[in-house]
Amino acid sequence: MKNKKLGVLGGGQLGRMLAQESIPYAVDLHFLDADPSFPAGQVCPSFHTGNFNNYDDVLNFGRQMDIITIEIENVNTDALKVLESEGKRVYPQASVIELIKDKGTQKQFYKKNNLPTSEFILADNKAAILQLIEDGHLKYPFVQKSRTEGYDGRGVSLIRSSQDDSKLMDTSSVIESLVDIDKELAISIAVNESKQKITFPVVEMVFNSEGNLLDYLLSPARIGEDINKRCIELAEKIVDKLGMTGILAIELFLTKNGDILINEIAPRTHNSGHHTLNASNYSQFEIHLRSIMNMPLNPIEQYKQAVMINLLGDKDYTGDAIYEGLEQVLSLDDVYVHLYGKKTTKPLRKMGHVNILENDDNVLDEKIEFVKSSLKVKA
Amino acid sequence: MKNKKLGVLGGGQLGRMLAQESIPYAVDLHFLDADPSFPAGQVCPSFHTGNFNNYDDVLNFGRQMDIITIEIENVNTDALKVLESEGKRVYPQASVIELIKDKGTQKQFYKKNNLPTSEFILADNKAAILQLIEDGHLKYPFVQKSRTEGYDGRGVSLIRSSQDDSKLMDTSSVIESLVDIDKELAISIAVNESKQKITFPVVEMVFNSEGNLLDYLLSPARIGEDINKRCIELAEKIVDKLGMTGILAIELFLTKNGDILINEIAPRTHNSGHHTLNASNYSQFEIHLRSIMNMPLNPIEQYKQAVMINLLGDKDYTGDAIYEGLEQVLSLDDVYVHLYGKKTTKPLRKMGHVNILENDDNVLDEKIEFVKSSLKVKA
Repeated sequence: MKNKKLGVLGGGQLGRMLAQESIPYAVDLHFLDADPSFPAGQVCPSFHTGNFNNYDDVLNFGRQMDIITIEIENVNTDALKVLESEGKRVYPQASVIELIKDKGTQKQFYKKNNLPTSEFILADNKAAILQLIEDGHLKYPFVQKSRTEGYDGRGVSLIRSSQDDSKLMDTSSVIESLVDIDKELAISIAVNESKQKITFPVVEMVFNSEGNLLDYLLSPARIGEDINKRCIELAEKIVDKLGMTGILAIELFLTKNGDILINEIAPRTHNSGHHTLNASNYSQFEIHLRSIMNMPLNPIEQYKQAVMINLLGDKDYTGDAIYEGLEQVLSLDDVYVHLYGKKTTKPLRKMGHVNILENDDNVLDEKIEFVKSSLKVKA
Repeated sequence: MKNKKLGVLGGGQLGRMLAQESIPYAVDLHFLDADPSFPAGQVCPSFHTGNFNNYDDVLNFGRQMDIITIEIENVNTDALKVLESEGKRVYPQASVIELIKDKGTQKQFYKKNNLPTSEFILADNKAAILQLIEDGHLKYPFVQKSRTEGYDGRGVSLIRSSQDDSKLMDTSSVIESLVDIDKELAISIAVNESKQKITFPVVEMVFNSEGNLLDYLLSPARIGEDINKRCIELAEKIVDKLGMTGILAIELFLTKNGDILINEIAPRTHNSGHHTLNASNYSQFEIHLRSIMNMPLNPIEQYKQAVMINLLGDKDYTGDAIYEGLEQVLSLDDVYVHLYGKKTTKPLRKMGHVNILENDDNVLDEKIEFVKSSLKVKA
């Protein structure tokens, strides 16, 4: 482990937190991204300037490494396949990244493997979607998701009726029927090279309707033992079918009928696991590192009930970031602020997150309200 | 806070762990030390090559910073005084570092302020010590400590009788009488600019007679409420008398009479606080950072009983470090390894540490034994 060079495609906040959590392991860590001023470059001296979407850049970077991982799916998988053929350990595997970064093939994978997910149709463009409606094969309301452009709520349109047709994106899409959702859940699972598996507690998500971004996350989710067990079993089945190494974040719908449906998966550390930096004995970043470097995976123990709140750029400001209310929030017991070091803010940009550990639900609600009303990113 | 440049004199493991813990705060962190391959340079891109003992190097480095701190006392305090006069915030203050880095003035400080410590005499060299014995002013056994050269057990000689006279160091020394020790304790206390104070739980230390280095540390110490309270009160009194900002580590003797005596103090993060990286809501590094950047200091909560074991270079090996037994130790529940990234090992060199969290004393003993017998640093 000690002398292996680990290369990460992408130098954003997920890379930054991976770098932080890898320090105790003295890993020889390297990043590839456009600019060393990016979040990971600020905390890792071995930052390679390049484009993780460019075939040559990924190949040249990967050839200097022993193990290659990602912090974003949107990377050049052709280069990763060559690296695999040359004996490099690419985790998650290139085929897994390729499958997942296209929401169409992702859906087909669920269907083929009898993994529960909502009904869907694939359509090449806006005209094809309108044709499906005209022909009676598609009924309002539905959700249109771009197969490849989606990230943080972008590339998703909710089409309620024909009046929303103007919101249809002219792109290759997955069309999903609306699900009658009781809760949105997520679970992260990691698998190491020796096929050891470990799951984090199931978490519950509440979304902000404005930006389609996570409003806050609660861990553990308020679900019964049966639902919990079914989530874990489903997570294990998914990684088995994928045959992957590394961490996988799984977003789930718990329907009002009690069904558990897969919404989306991401073969990497994920926004839904940021609370683990404070809430448990291992963070998602540490567990990802251990899984791809084939270290043992030990049980996760969460110390207290946790809430994670994204710290987003205020919607009215663009420019050099200024944090308002930071000192007040830092003065709260068991409230932990994580800033990503981004110099400039823009509307709804992810600038950091706040973890709150609190077992008392009333005190927790007060702290959530205080953090949300006090801490602002302006310019 | 966000736009302040923080400069650290020294780039060893204490700096490395400070860098790790400062990542969530997005601090603009810089180090000054001889080589960027040192532990802190591996995890911080802003590493300035220079000598923290050289007046010009410290002055030039400090002038580029807003706040200057240390990870070692043995720095050029003349330059720090100039920086203070130029309006830089130097924490701990230059006068505090100067007082503490000389064990003679440290002892005089205790005496002057009625702070409890063992009896002592100052002597300029070996001849002066032999003269004190001849004149009947000094009796065997005693401990000789070099006033300025001591670190990690170096610069300390136990002189039991005239047969040990050959072990006397020919240097300016503090001569201390032997204390009838029940336990060796330590407590860390931090003070921010606003004079907020916070203490970590009192810890108990067990030393390895071979290298005079810490064998293992137990937190919290097995002491009664009265002793605990007296340790905290003493810690508060010391920082008040010092008038310092930052963290102070205080090593104490609990005598068989129940007296609490100050052994040594260090105005920085310390080996006796390494368990806090896993055992509590804040680590000593995070609390030091918060204190010198005038952030609020919140109560420390330790989650479980903790043991910290130093990982030392095997006494028979010098060269490129190889870690034996790492995977076995990483597979233990609630056992956390911290490596410092040092490329070469030498006898008893501090290469890392292992934190064990375990409330069951029998299981704890088993884990300590397993770690100590399994994990080795060879070459």
